[in-house]
Amino acid sequence: MNDETIGSWLDQLASSAPAPGGGAAAAMHAAIGAALVSMVANLTIGKSAYAAHEEHAVSVRDRAEALRHKAIRLAADDAAAFTALMATYRLPKETAEQKAERGAAIRSATEAAAGVPLEIAATAAEVIELAESLPGRSNPNVLSDVAVAASSAVAAVESAAVNVEINLGSLRDAAVKEPLATALAEHLRVADRARTLVAEVRREINQ
Amino acid sequence: MNDETIGSWLDQLASSAPAPGGGAAAAMHAAIGAALVSMVANLTIGKSAYAAHEEHAVSVRDRAEALRHKAIRLAADDAAAFTALMATYRLPKETAEQKAERGAAIRSATEAAAGVPLEIAATAAEVIELAESLPGRSNPNVLSDVAVAASSAVAAVESAAVNVEINLGSLRDAAVKEPLATALAEHLRVADRARTLVAEVRREINQ
Repeated sequence: MNDETIGSWLDQLASSAPAPGGGAAAAMHAAIGAALVSMVANLTIGKSAYAAHEEHAVSVRDRAEALRHKAIRLAADDAAAFTALMATYRLPKETAEQKAERGAAIRSATEAAAGVPLEIAATAAEVIELAESLPGRSNPNVLSDVAVAASSAVAAVESAAVNVEINLGSLRDAAVKEPLATALAEHLRVADRARTLVAEVRREINQ
Repeated sequence: MNDETIGSWLDQLASSAPAPGGGAAAAMHAAIGAALVSMVANLTIGKSAYAAHEEHAVSVRDRAEALRHKAIRLAADDAAAFTALMATYRLPKETAEQKAERGAAIRSATEAAAGVPLEIAATAAEVIELAESLPGRSNPNVLSDVAVAASSAVAAVESAAVNVEINLGSLRDAAVKEPLATALAEHLRVADRARTLVAEVRREINQ
């Protein structure tokens, strides 16, 4: 996705092509959130006024860069998992044996297709944790960008959640579904915290 | 922005360069939301099962495409307005006349810099209105993408709002500030409605 132009990616997103779709959009939101966390850190690093925060800013920036690249990889994984899932629905289903094999293949591909947006949500939740660590420990002139980073990451978690849930809906095995649903609920709680962070930054800006 | 690669744009967003920043991120969220509205419309158009929704889907798709291209243009406008504002701070301020001229130039550039994210928020609010018109009037297999579109547009309005507010904070003239603040409050109300839409779609998916 990194080498694609923004115009071409948006054209494909807008088209009726099966991918990119909501999963890739979620990954892009996470990448934007991570990039803005990096920006705030980069505008803190190397400035004498914020020397006390230098070490923290460097570690936040390095982690945010890793999360950004992970989000971009997950966008590709999401398209691959979706394509693989679509392929299982085209497996033969004439004999009882074929039906059983097809059913097992669909279940396993659906689980994989739920796993990728769950990882996107986890990545975005980590972006939120980095953003939460910045107010008071970074260049206050770009506090507004901390809020934009948090808002982007909320959209990432929420968009990813919808894509996890749509796949969980077609799984029957509680032993498979429950750990995925539990992990997702935790990421959604972090997103709720990010909404509070956005509100706090806006309150400070509007003082 | 359309011809730039995603990797290079994210690198610049993450860097300490003055632009792109939070305003461009807001515009990108709006463009992603508009693209997903188009996708849902495109997966409705031309399918006999949804023939009753054909006319609505075509009109939604055409408007969403226009909003997407407007959002991309606004990202460039935001960078230009920010650069112009930074330039006014470097104007000479030695004589009383220079000080007065510089003050007027800063005020006018700040007003312009608040106006661009306000337009991004307005564009995203329109994306939300299109998304709201889709459930029950589009292909239900991509209902989840309506929620992702709405979630993206919420991040766009919220990110744009922070960038409007940071500029309003440095304006003193109530006659200039009030209409901007009133328009922004209206877009934020539409964003609140979009949160309800996301919750409703998730409830339907999780049934």
